[in-house]
Amino acid sequence: MSDPKRILAEMSRDLDSQIRLYIKDECPENLIGAVRQYPYAGGKRIRPSLVIASCGAVGGEKSKAIPLAVAIEYIHNFTLIHDDIIDGDEKRRGMITSHMKYGIPTAILAGDALFGKALNVLSELEVSDGDLRRILRFITAAVWDLARGQQMDINNESGKSVTIKDYIETIRLKTGVLFAASAVGGALIGGADNSIIEAIRRYATSLGIAFQIFDDVLGIVGDPVKTGKSITNDIRRGKYTAITCHAVESIKEENEMRTFRSIFGKVDGSEEEIGVVRSILKKSGSIDYAIKLANKYSKDAMSELSLLTSSEDKDFLIELAKYAVTRSV
Amino acid sequence: MSDPKRILAEMSRDLDSQIRLYIKDECPENLIGAVRQYPYAGGKRIRPSLVIASCGAVGGEKSKAIPLAVAIEYIHNFTLIHDDIIDGDEKRRGMITSHMKYGIPTAILAGDALFGKALNVLSELEVSDGDLRRILRFITAAVWDLARGQQMDINNESGKSVTIKDYIETIRLKTGVLFAASAVGGALIGGADNSIIEAIRRYATSLGIAFQIFDDVLGIVGDPVKTGKSITNDIRRGKYTAITCHAVESIKEENEMRTFRSIFGKVDGSEEEIGVVRSILKKSGSIDYAIKLANKYSKDAMSELSLLTSSEDKDFLIELAKYAVTRSV
Repeated sequence: MSDPKRILAEMSRDLDSQIRLYIKDECPENLIGAVRQYPYAGGKRIRPSLVIASCGAVGGEKSKAIPLAVAIEYIHNFTLIHDDIIDGDEKRRGMITSHMKYGIPTAILAGDALFGKALNVLSELEVSDGDLRRILRFITAAVWDLARGQQMDINNESGKSVTIKDYIETIRLKTGVLFAASAVGGALIGGADNSIIEAIRRYATSLGIAFQIFDDVLGIVGDPVKTGKSITNDIRRGKYTAITCHAVESIKEENEMRTFRSIFGKVDGSEEEIGVVRSILKKSGSIDYAIKLANKYSKDAMSELSLLTSSEDKDFLIELAKYAVTRSV
Repeated sequence: MSDPKRILAEMSRDLDSQIRLYIKDECPENLIGAVRQYPYAGGKRIRPSLVIASCGAVGGEKSKAIPLAVAIEYIHNFTLIHDDIIDGDEKRRGMITSHMKYGIPTAILAGDALFGKALNVLSELEVSDGDLRRILRFITAAVWDLARGQQMDINNESGKSVTIKDYIETIRLKTGVLFAASAVGGALIGGADNSIIEAIRRYATSLGIAFQIFDDVLGIVGDPVKTGKSITNDIRRGKYTAITCHAVESIKEENEMRTFRSIFGKVDGSEEEIGVVRSILKKSGSIDYAIKLANKYSKDAMSELSLLTSSEDKDFLIELAKYAVTRSV
């Protein structure tokens, strides 16, 4: 079996030089520095790997998908830069965030510039002009949906009850649609027919949802040293996730519910209080519930791939769906 | 002679329904409200008018250019939303700014979403797929340059001396390139050949520079009631414009230069101090210089149009170049 972490690392290495290809030395230096910071810093590179593996899995020539992989990674990074401003985060994976390093104005502009560059790279894709039009449509619709998902995420923090259905819709928009645009774009470049493209789209949407649910699990029970996320952050912020949506519906004892509600979203909650909430979430079965839900989406994703003939790239897509819900980072 | 203000007003009215066509009712409501605010509020609509008139002036079917006109207006508005955050402006043309109304997170996302929507509208253009690729290339390069220009503008405020050459390059990027992309896109849709497209590109670049120089003149000597700009803002902010670049090179008396330097960029400069600076700028001939420079670019713009055969749209493009440097708003 292929090891998705190893393959991701290899793909990431191969992509690095391509990611550095399009952002030339230009003035003003501070903007170019800010534009480069996130994409040059690495990361899991899941979305660009999805582009390339989807192209390969439908029998396409993978090298042709590289500019799209780069464009998608730029788009992902542009949203991270703006997200970090919005969330007021000072660090990302140990790295100082864009707005803390360059100031908010430059970070806003760097995100905008990176989005512009992404679509400029897209205009150079060696695909039929008709396919370019379809890819443009998918990607720009994804960015629109992504902004909607991020806004829902913000709105969800404002204290009202969020159902699990609302939460799934939020992460579908926040994560699923760009995963889907990545995979669909790769499959289009690979020359897939519409039924395959639809299956790939459903695969990647479910994969994105599985990734995001499991990310939220790691945000509550993960090892902060590995994940680079503060466990306490999601609780202090009152962030709705599959775990907390379930908890609100499942905590039976009134006392526990009162305790949970008094600490969840309390920005200055103590470490002890966070620990109490974590115990309540374990007892209510909410953490197990979220892990099972992530596994369901992971399995849904894999089942969509049955149309594809066997290949290394298909194997990678399957392993990626397993990795989504087993990783520690 | 056609009156560009009247034609702009007519075009703006015709475009209004189109501008409202693509932003459907969706959730979350606050994001959609923020996305709609700026484009629905109106404005001079110079860029979309440029798209349509350029298409008409090369003999094209103007209705085909409408989606591009809408896309460009969305892009312009996305940059305004982010600009207002960057500058910390509380009002724009009497209207409360996006981030003051919806908060910074939603304003950032609204700008991003509007940019995404702009390029999504582009994907629906009824042009050959090859022309779509060329238009995509032009517009995305323009957004990249725009961010560079805005960053240079910010950097220029940080106190170092800025030459007139630096200033012209800044406004070429900040304003000229999107004007150029608008006109070139319109001409491409109209089926113009490369020599015409190059002439139109040079016309619109010079037009954009003329507009921006004159905007900066209005920012110092205009009627704040008409322009909606505070005269004192540019001076308090230490904003480099053609006027202040010239002043730094031309003020002869040491006393005057000391006074100018002590007030220019003084965030809490009094009304009296601002008045003193304005007198110095008049005496040094800097305001006249900037008006002449704007006129030079306006004439350069017009001279590029000699290749075009006579038409109402050509007349409008000429009148627009005159209007750029004679308007009071």
